[in-house]
Amino acid sequence: MDFTPSERAAELTEAVRAFIRDEIEPLESRLPRPDGDGRWHVPEEVRELRRKARDQGLWNLFLPAGHEGQYAARYGTRGGAGLSNAEYAPVAEATGWSFLAPYVFNCNAPDTGNAEVLLKYGSPEQRDRWLDPLLDGAIRSAFAMTEPGVASSDATNMRLTAVVDGDEVVLDGRKWWTTGVGHPDCRLLIVMGLTDPGAHRYSRHSMVLVPLDTPGVRVERMLDTMGFFDEPFGHGEVSFTNVRVPLSNVIAGPGRAFEIAQGRLGPGRVHHAMRLVGLAERALHLACERGLSRTAFGKPLADLGGNRERIADARIAINSLRLLIMHAAWKLDTEGPLASMSEVSQIKVAAPNVAQQVIDFAMQIHGGAGLSSDFPLAHAWTAARAIRLADGPDEVHRGVIARIELAQHGATR
Amino acid sequence: MDFTPSERAAELTEAVRAFIRDEIEPLESRLPRPDGDGRWHVPEEVRELRRKARDQGLWNLFLPAGHEGQYAARYGTRGGAGLSNAEYAPVAEATGWSFLAPYVFNCNAPDTGNAEVLLKYGSPEQRDRWLDPLLDGAIRSAFAMTEPGVASSDATNMRLTAVVDGDEVVLDGRKWWTTGVGHPDCRLLIVMGLTDPGAHRYSRHSMVLVPLDTPGVRVERMLDTMGFFDEPFGHGEVSFTNVRVPLSNVIAGPGRAFEIAQGRLGPGRVHHAMRLVGLAERALHLACERGLSRTAFGKPLADLGGNRERIADARIAINSLRLLIMHAAWKLDTEGPLASMSEVSQIKVAAPNVAQQVIDFAMQIHGGAGLSSDFPLAHAWTAARAIRLADGPDEVHRGVIARIELAQHGATR
Amino acid sequence: MDFTPSERAAELTEAVRAFIRDEIEPLESRLPRPDGDGRWHVPEEVRELRRKARDQGLWNLFLPAGHEGQYAARYGTRGGAGLSNAEYAPVAEATGWSFLAPYVFNCNAPDTGNAEVLLKYGSPEQRDRWLDPLLDGAIRSAFAMTEPGVASSDATNMRLTAVVDGDEVVLDGRKWWTTGVGHPDCRLLIVMGLTDPGAHRYSRHSMVLVPLDTPGVRVERMLDTMGFFDEPFGHGEVSFTNVRVPLSNVIAGPGRAFEIAQGRLGPGRVHHAMRLVGLAERALHLACERGLSRTAFGKPLADLGGNRERIADARIAINSLRLLIMHAAWKLDTEGPLASMSEVSQIKVAAPNVAQQVIDFAMQIHGGAGLSSDFPLAHAWTAARAIRLADGPDEVHRGVIARIELAQHGATR
Amino acid sequence: MDFTPSERAAELTEAVRAFIRDEIEPLESRLPRPDGDGRWHVPEEVRELRRKARDQGLWNLFLPAGHEGQYAARYGTRGGAGLSNAEYAPVAEATGWSFLAPYVFNCNAPDTGNAEVLLKYGSPEQRDRWLDPLLDGAIRSAFAMTEPGVASSDATNMRLTAVVDGDEVVLDGRKWWTTGVGHPDCRLLIVMGLTDPGAHRYSRHSMVLVPLDTPGVRVERMLDTMGFFDEPFGHGEVSFTNVRVPLSNVIAGPGRAFEIAQGRLGPGRVHHAMRLVGLAERALHLACERGLSRTAFGKPLADLGGNRERIADARIAINSLRLLIMHAAWKLDTEGPLASMSEVSQIKVAAPNVAQQVIDFAMQIHGGAGLSSDFPLAHAWTAARAIRLADGPDEVHRGVIARIELAQHGATR
Repeated sequence: MDFTPSERAAELTEAVRAFIRDEIEPLESRLPRPDGDGRWHVPEEVRELRRKARDQGLWNLFLPAGHEGQYAARYGTRGGAGLSNAEYAPVAEATGWSFLAPYVFNCNAPDTGNAEVLLKYGSPEQRDRWLDPLLDGAIRSAFAMTEPGVASSDATNMRLTAVVDGDEVVLDGRKWWTTGVGHPDCRLLIVMGLTDPGAHRYSRHSMVLVPLDTPGVRVERMLDTMGFFDEPFGHGEVSFTNVRVPLSNVIAGPGRAFEIAQGRLGPGRVHHAMRLVGLAERALHLACERGLSRTAFGKPLADLGGNRERIADARIAINSLRLLIMHAAWKLDTEGPLASMSEVSQIKVAAPNVAQQVIDFAMQIHGGAGLSSDFPLAHAWTAARAIRLADGPDEVHRGVIARIELAQHGATR
Repeated sequence: MDFTPSERAAELTEAVRAFIRDEIEPLESRLPRPDGDGRWHVPEEVRELRRKARDQGLWNLFLPAGHEGQYAARYGTRGGAGLSNAEYAPVAEATGWSFLAPYVFNCNAPDTGNAEVLLKYGSPEQRDRWLDPLLDGAIRSAFAMTEPGVASSDATNMRLTAVVDGDEVVLDGRKWWTTGVGHPDCRLLIVMGLTDPGAHRYSRHSMVLVPLDTPGVRVERMLDTMGFFDEPFGHGEVSFTNVRVPLSNVIAGPGRAFEIAQGRLGPGRVHHAMRLVGLAERALHLACERGLSRTAFGKPLADLGGNRERIADARIAINSLRLLIMHAAWKLDTEGPLASMSEVSQIKVAAPNVAQQVIDFAMQIHGGAGLSSDFPLAHAWTAARAIRLADGPDEVHRGVIARIELAQHGATR
Repeated sequence: MDFTPSERAAELTEAVRAFIRDEIEPLESRLPRPDGDGRWHVPEEVRELRRKARDQGLWNLFLPAGHEGQYAARYGTRGGAGLSNAEYAPVAEATGWSFLAPYVFNCNAPDTGNAEVLLKYGSPEQRDRWLDPLLDGAIRSAFAMTEPGVASSDATNMRLTAVVDGDEVVLDGRKWWTTGVGHPDCRLLIVMGLTDPGAHRYSRHSMVLVPLDTPGVRVERMLDTMGFFDEPFGHGEVSFTNVRVPLSNVIAGPGRAFEIAQGRLGPGRVHHAMRLVGLAERALHLACERGLSRTAFGKPLADLGGNRERIADARIAINSLRLLIMHAAWKLDTEGPLASMSEVSQIKVAAPNVAQQVIDFAMQIHGGAGLSSDFPLAHAWTAARAIRLADGPDEVHRGVIARIELAQHGATR
Repeated sequence: MDFTPSERAAELTEAVRAFIRDEIEPLESRLPRPDGDGRWHVPEEVRELRRKARDQGLWNLFLPAGHEGQYAARYGTRGGAGLSNAEYAPVAEATGWSFLAPYVFNCNAPDTGNAEVLLKYGSPEQRDRWLDPLLDGAIRSAFAMTEPGVASSDATNMRLTAVVDGDEVVLDGRKWWTTGVGHPDCRLLIVMGLTDPGAHRYSRHSMVLVPLDTPGVRVERMLDTMGFFDEPFGHGEVSFTNVRVPLSNVIAGPGRAFEIAQGRLGPGRVHHAMRLVGLAERALHLACERGLSRTAFGKPLADLGGNRERIADARIAINSLRLLIMHAAWKLDTEGPLASMSEVSQIKVAAPNVAQQVIDFAMQIHGGAGLSSDFPLAHAWTAARAIRLADGPDEVHRGVIARIELAQHGATR
């Protein structure tokens, strides 16, 4: 159980930290606040930072070990650094410091997860057409799973149909919380749909590559999460009306959506969770700064009431969380996703809850400023809250953890 | 300790409930989502509802007992119903059900508090010029206390100056979270400023009536709370540059701002707290509806995991909170604000925390829908969070409660 | 919803408070610590206090309204004061201040509940034989419901048999947590047993009066709750082997145990809950005293870290809880136990949890002293914890509350 | 950051687990419950187990690396195994499973801490006289620091005097919570006393070796923690009246008590914390067993309400805690106690709180049985609670963590 990063990983983490400190943080506050519900653009300064990051080799670092050679050959520095999950974890934490960072380093969800799906399950043709431009940063993609009409926490509820019709697949239905669909560069949707209602519960659904401009695909509206539209990515509600794509667009063949989704989620949850650690660290950093620099009732805020206790609790919670995630990453690396199901669900539950609590304290010590967009706290807080639902609500993950725990005592479900 | 409402209060509460159910709720979802940072308008449908509410006598119901005669004479039904705090409490709870409701009934903050200040401390001229149109609904007002440059949780930190210069007062400085200043009908600011730095800690500041169009007053920008701008009222950052108003615009004379603020806050906090009870009731209502109507893993959501326990905890918390507020209102009515300081601070702490927790559960059981603006939950959640800071952060109120508790054991501070 | 006590109730509450302050508190610390597992005695000083309390009319005050006449005639002052639940509530709170108090005033569980059962459901003969000496204080009784072999949270699990055999009932089985059986004056057990396994789920069990000296009844051992044996009452494990009593010892006839138990529990839960309020008040009182009188790091303990915030939270929690219980008592009085099921379960959940939390803080601020038996805190803390299980665990009561809540939204279970 | 145990450590951990499973657990329930306040004995079966453990080399495993050679030479297997803190941590977790285990393996507090003090700071004579028999298991010792008359959370408050008088030290004063003093084999007290009130705050006190039979030493009484006396060790209140010992009994010379205490506590806190992990694991194990084997309302208890969620939360909390402690142990090993002050305080806060919460759930799912001494849960729960005060209350440790955190932002205290 060795969490020490390799020398290469340590260097990359440091480089990412420096880049964020020197290049991204100064830009953060200069960017205009996005203007709400609509089509968005990517500010030229951000595109410039992406080029710079890529030039420095800080690009696609999420790409899992084992593929670096292949992509190094094709893309030079674009090919990732061959980091294990445990090695990438501190890089992910570093990128959590700023909301801009993951995109700047081409390491943002859902493109990372989509890229991994294509890498592991995609056919050579699928990889040529979609994976290359994704890794290249030329296009963005979205992931369409949740549906407005059913409780999607039980993914088998999904009822958008993806029916095989000769050498085509026909999609009909509606998705929402399709993250990334608002991005001006979005070209691809990965859509989960019901193919064979008579098959086994976990073999009914397929994962289909749907170009965004396919006839019948319509972004009905963009959704806000607590007032924030998360521009320029956004979360869309998308309707599919008699949408036809070639059968070869089905990833790994019909009926394998759940199998693919499961493999997609382990590393992605480590990324998410470590980014939340970075976010919580920033919140605590801001809380300490504010707590020492502002004065009320004759004392620095940090010395009033229970504030020091809350700083201590935040430190305990963050450190515990980081170690829990490092351990899950290490287990994913050494024993694989199946053996790590409980650990991955544990971090899925723990990370947003810890982050939300730390950020809440940071907001409180900032007073009104903490509620506004002058600081990244309000957005961070709502983001952490939203992740308690995204990729499966807390309750579902607690169920997984308990099932595995009880199985050790003989329970059969 | 009798919390039974009078017959008149019970009738009004029922009428308000019916009005909300029949007139306001159907409108809620039809209204367009406001369009972010900017100047806002009031939809004509809402103005129409205001007229209707007024015609039915559901208008200015917050106006404290003792003044009904005076205003009934002048405004007919506009004069309130002469309800005590305990009687108005269930009305306030009813209006908490919908964010539109307080405005429709002309019972929204900060106009209610501003009206009370004018009623209790205003000169006849001040009342003629400002109170009448406020109660009439012809204008809106804002309250400017918090400042961006200091920890405003300690109100004595305020440093916008309000210097007496002959028969004028000159204001210089900057305020933010000036709630209501974005409303198209806003005409009046009540501004707290530092008049005499050498006076006793609580006698240094004055409360000044400043027409919004006074030269030197500038709304620099509107602030969002977690992405929401709370249109059409909004929270502004406002600069004051050599702003001159007549000395007669100082309410009750220079140096009395704290005394006035204290009197202003008791009933206002009862209103806020009871509206939060109404909000929490709606969240629980929505949670139960959703929990029974959606199914996952073969069961209604309400029957999964700890959901029923959370429903029970919400019920316990809401009922306890309502009674705590009713008691505070009753004590305000019978023993006055000074004797009720602890009780008022208790509800100021308890109400938003309970509401936030209940709404959080309701969001969770709604899944993604709970995060969006399709349901009032996300906005409600951020609003409850914001109230943990507005009108004094939780920590300051806890300090008041502890001081009063310890004083009974001989502590002198 | 008037919680003001009647003049008579206010006088009695004040008299009880004074008696505890002047007579019981001074005795508390002088009493020897009981000597563990064994048969116990009642110190003569305590018996003397009981006589004194009775002489002052502070006796059987729990006796519900409607019976005072009957018992006044027979016992003079022993007959209670005819208080409603809402009126008795503040008396119960007062007695919660000291663990000795309920017994001194002949208002202790389980004798109060047993007396109420006999009062409401007992035959004249049963009342003559058992109720009179109970109210007279001549004997004590115990209540045998929970069983060691089954999950007794589901009371229908009970499997001690109470079979009708001609004009006798035969009991066979085992009970534990039979509270009161260790008392030297205990003469009577009220035992719940399974009579007709084929009847409706809630009509299978009977409630049987079993004299403690009936052949076949054997107290196997006394149980501790977290190290405390709660002398001189105690909790026993009791075996019943071919125990035969006359059929006339069945209260209200065979199969009615659940109906009787339900009626028994409402007022009893108000008593328990209000005593916990009194206990929490004492803990907070001690915490404030200690917090002001001891110094560390140059300050009174009360001024260190989050202690003032915890004092405030305790005050909020206690006040909210008291009002919740007062409301439940008032509803019991005005609408009866069936309409008050949710309210009674609410206080059953809220009271021990609030008390446990307040006492935990008080222990913490007392340091090591808080853990020892030098202060009543450690015992109080474990007592509050135990009540989260006694009379139905929190989880069962949360289930009741949720069921009633969801029924309003159309749920049928 | 490698937490993998060495092969030797893994073997020892497994051997300890097996010994506990095969030898100690079966004995646990057969031992008579101790009989309260008094002098205690060690059951012969336990002494026998100690001999067996020692024969198998499972003895003094806590002894820090670097000393194994010395003690191996003198005591053979008694010399420990030369484990680092990180290596000993899983052994300590294993011993936390049973309250008997630490003593059986001669790894129980306070003897371990006292042994470490003598090892690091003792003179050769002191080690000969006291360390050898301690490691040999021939005697037991106690540690006397906390005082009844002052807030001992601020250790500089201690006022028992230890005055140098020629070649003697004279002790006068009173200690309590002197753990271990009740053990029949206790022969030695390590006492902290005030030597030079005029010296620097942290150089005023001395640590003195006082044989228990020194004239003037008197065990006034044994203290219970929530009803438990923790036999056969116990916590005593001890008076010192003109107690004279040779000056050479002062460890490391006068005025060095704080320096020694600081060094004593790091590893001891790792031991305590890991034992609490073991205790929490056992509680969760029992909860799962009970949850699956008992049925209510037609389902296993584990499937009712939020029980599965609580199992999941327990698993998350335990895993996070274990990693936090492993990290602190690793840091102690690699960077020393001074650099690890925050980490050590973090585990001091986290461990008992997590354990208390997990055990509370386990108690609840056990119903009444969980409160009794039939299961180790009630004792475990009160023990975890007590550790929130022992060795410094949570609040003091939170203060340390916050001070170190804020120092990184420039705070000077």
